[in-house]
Amino acid sequence: MTVYLVGAGPGSVDLLTLRAATLLRHADVVVTDRLVDESVLALVPNGIEVIDVGKRPGMSHSQELINDLLISLASSLQSVVRLKGGDPFVFGRGGEEALALREAGIDVEVVPGVTSAFAAPAAAGIPVTHRDISWGVTVVTGHTKDGLEIDFRSLANPSLTLVILMGITHRHSIAQQLMEGGLSPTTAVAVVASAWTQQQRIMRTNLVQLPAVTVPTPAVVVVGEVANLDVGSLSDLVLQVS
Amino acid sequence: MTVYLVGAGPGSVDLLTLRAATLLRHADVVVTDRLVDESVLALVPNGIEVIDVGKRPGMSHSQELINDLLISLASSLQSVVRLKGGDPFVFGRGGEEALALREAGIDVEVVPGVTSAFAAPAAAGIPVTHRDISWGVTVVTGHTKDGLEIDFRSLANPSLTLVILMGITHRHSIAQQLMEGGLSPTTAVAVVASAWTQQQRIMRTNLVQLPAVTVPTPAVVVVGEVANLDVGSLSDLVLQVS
Repeated sequence: MTVYLVGAGPGSVDLLTLRAATLLRHADVVVTDRLVDESVLALVPNGIEVIDVGKRPGMSHSQELINDLLISLASSLQSVVRLKGGDPFVFGRGGEEALALREAGIDVEVVPGVTSAFAAPAAAGIPVTHRDISWGVTVVTGHTKDGLEIDFRSLANPSLTLVILMGITHRHSIAQQLMEGGLSPTTAVAVVASAWTQQQRIMRTNLVQLPAVTVPTPAVVVVGEVANLDVGSLSDLVLQVS
Repeated sequence: MTVYLVGAGPGSVDLLTLRAATLLRHADVVVTDRLVDESVLALVPNGIEVIDVGKRPGMSHSQELINDLLISLASSLQSVVRLKGGDPFVFGRGGEEALALREAGIDVEVVPGVTSAFAAPAAAGIPVTHRDISWGVTVVTGHTKDGLEIDFRSLANPSLTLVILMGITHRHSIAQQLMEGGLSPTTAVAVVASAWTQQQRIMRTNLVQLPAVTVPTPAVVVVGEVANLDVGSLSDLVLQVS
């Protein structure tokens, strides 16, 4: 009777919240996105169904179908966990799902997660804010249905860090627009792919060379002076969770 | 010999990450900020020292003193946990501490946390991004040493959500500058104080009325159309953690 919109964090299971882990262990069904790491799904007890509604190219479930599925599951089950990579309210379309569920009279609870927007840079030793370098951070997505809809020129602010989720496809126009907006071609850029998983890769470049970078997805692009920093190493990524 | 820079999340212990909980349970000493909730500190075993270096008005520890303390502790202890409210790399000065520690030859590991910048709005049922309303989010701090240093006029963008951490003191100038920058006086504003704790309070207003709002601190200010939304309820805030 309750749908829990749960953030799965950036990758590694040990960056899941205690509340998310508890809900996964007691779920009656789990509805998950493609970007959720296997180590997280491993917490779901045997015998409990895990439905993957991840949007793969060519076989995407529409948002309406997902909403209908959640409503239908919630009408017969006590605890439906809707699992989303990172945080459900940061480009997770969690707000839309929550509204659809409430309109159908179903209780919704939100469990925030560690957002990839900040944790992916951290995996590269990059703090998104840093004294005298960056006094704030803007997070946008580079992935849109109908090509690039955002005017990146308006986001060219050398005092702010810019984090672009799913920005790889449109990296050429993004870099071009940011330079047109006034950012220097030598502005530092870091690309972090598959952060906090065994497949993690970090690339450092600058704005003018960003289009030439070839990277696996999913990847997070960090633009700004902080992208030059590397303030900390990482431990073994996956901690055993009992 | 290792300092762990650990995000404590926004409040309630159940929004701590599994990795943070494990580190707290096995720490040799914990150095904490003022904004970390008691429920989180309760995970530290009896007999383990918890040092509060929180910056209170008039009795602040300087950042240099904190760095020196961490270096000194790390030279004799195996596992020093440096606990910070929210995420250590989002206005936590975690980057500075990490750099100082590395320069002293000490290993640093970063453990991202759930940031209050996104979790506090979520506590009020506000998704910081939402289709057709907000295509991104900017996070800044309103708290600075020498008055308001940020030019908020440059942040007046009706397509982006603006989250201001510690913005209550300067709310008058912030509102004024955002309106001068072009935001409508009726732009929705939500103020969330002590999110995810028993003291949580939510106030809804608009830009022109923001200066008149009286709120306890710490509080997060959300500016933008999403601040009108309330997409989900919250459960009991504190889950028992064994």
